[in-house]
Amino acid sequence: MNPQPDWQHILEECRINIQKAIQPCLESLNEPQPNLGIGAGGDPTKPADLAAETAIVEILKSHDISCTLISEEAGIKKYGAATKNCYITVDPIDGTTNLTRKLPFFCTSIAVSNTPYLGNVYAGMIADLVHNQTYTAFANKGAFCNGEPIHTSKIQSLDKACIGLDLNAYRAILNMDFVAKIIKNTRHTRHFGANALEVCYVACGLTDAFIDLRTKIRTTDIAAGFLIAKEAGAIITDEANQSINVFLDPKQTLNFVASANMYIHKQILSLISVDL
Amino acid sequence: MNPQPDWQHILEECRINIQKAIQPCLESLNEPQPNLGIGAGGDPTKPADLAAETAIVEILKSHDISCTLISEEAGIKKYGAATKNCYITVDPIDGTTNLTRKLPFFCTSIAVSNTPYLGNVYAGMIADLVHNQTYTAFANKGAFCNGEPIHTSKIQSLDKACIGLDLNAYRAILNMDFVAKIIKNTRHTRHFGANALEVCYVACGLTDAFIDLRTKIRTTDIAAGFLIAKEAGAIITDEANQSINVFLDPKQTLNFVASANMYIHKQILSLISVDL
Repeated sequence: MNPQPDWQHILEECRINIQKAIQPCLESLNEPQPNLGIGAGGDPTKPADLAAETAIVEILKSHDISCTLISEEAGIKKYGAATKNCYITVDPIDGTTNLTRKLPFFCTSIAVSNTPYLGNVYAGMIADLVHNQTYTAFANKGAFCNGEPIHTSKIQSLDKACIGLDLNAYRAILNMDFVAKIIKNTRHTRHFGANALEVCYVACGLTDAFIDLRTKIRTTDIAAGFLIAKEAGAIITDEANQSINVFLDPKQTLNFVASANMYIHKQILSLISVDL
Repeated sequence: MNPQPDWQHILEECRINIQKAIQPCLESLNEPQPNLGIGAGGDPTKPADLAAETAIVEILKSHDISCTLISEEAGIKKYGAATKNCYITVDPIDGTTNLTRKLPFFCTSIAVSNTPYLGNVYAGMIADLVHNQTYTAFANKGAFCNGEPIHTSKIQSLDKACIGLDLNAYRAILNMDFVAKIIKNTRHTRHFGANALEVCYVACGLTDAFIDLRTKIRTTDIAAGFLIAKEAGAIITDEANQSINVFLDPKQTLNFVASANMYIHKQILSLISVDL
């Protein structure tokens, strides 16, 4: 049996290769960005998405990684002979709209698991491709930003909290009563437009929660983020306080609340509980 | 009579001095940031707010500028003898919460006018203090980012638009029916948490509109942004399509919709019109 790949090293190589691969795309943003088809997740694939995905595959191949790749762009692809031992779930660019609009907030997300289930992700990296912040986590070994340990915030009340809230509900269903309650009771709300990175903001205490109840977010967006946030101390459940362990698939969607601590989590769930 | 001050030069000196002055604050963000009283705008004054305000006043004094300073922090202060000829409206740091939480979106906003009314602002600068983007405008002379001319986006439909929406309505009144209609009909919504900067995003085509209907935003936040956006081609009115020319005062609040063009503006106003 081959030794376990050095994921810390491989993920860092992916980040460097992606940063290099998307540079020409970033330099050509004054020209219209063509749609290169529709990705497996349902969104149009832009040149930067394709460049980043290719950059990931190049590194995996250079290390002879045999795996099932689960990507927001290419869908499910198998590499090598042992595709049932290793699943790599990627969103090559999370925040493609931000990237194409030159809004300085987008990232790459890569998660590694030994089964095709979210709960089995054991290594994850989310790289902020604008601000050079790289978030990593390994199961039971903690979460890190640029190699330094990170922890969630200790703020215990929504009265003092800053929380992320995805309200991109065009053609989606969103309970506006829940939204109104969250907005009314939270000191500050934000939405930067790259959910993987916004989950990392919860992980390192920049925000106190991130909420996405649109039944629209994909496992490719959050597979790495969930591990990073949990390893940093976050509580993550669905809106009914149930743990989330869905199938890793580009089409699988979910709802979630990721909170810095149990105090914040309980307050958010009490606001959005249908029983109250 | 003294010659007109060289505002382009003075505003740039302010930006450089602010960037230098807040550096120690940025380096000490791992420690709690004390409240240094409540600013004239009603929010707690943080060390970075005070450092940035002091940096502005230093530059104005070094140029012997006689003016009425209208600041979100210090309130209204008079410098020199000719305080009725020159009004300088400043938000030393817009996005103080982002700054203190290490969220990478905050800016400084400085507007110059010859009366204490928003409509008479003739020079403005908003400096993104994270990404080194400086937006400037001079009445009837266009708007610029880092010296290059900027223009609003040509996107004409909310179906394709990315719009900023301030939903920080803690302790404020916000019509959630309006919010629901905007969210349902707009492709992408965002809120980065520094409204002055987000108005510049409209000016340079990164977003297609910015909407703030909380009756909470202050003239100190948007005095420079309105000039920059208008000079770049934006349409700015209140929610009833009335032009906005309020008194420049740290306590004066308003509602506004700033749109990239008349097509987007009409669609937004039709969604939030109480007559429909």
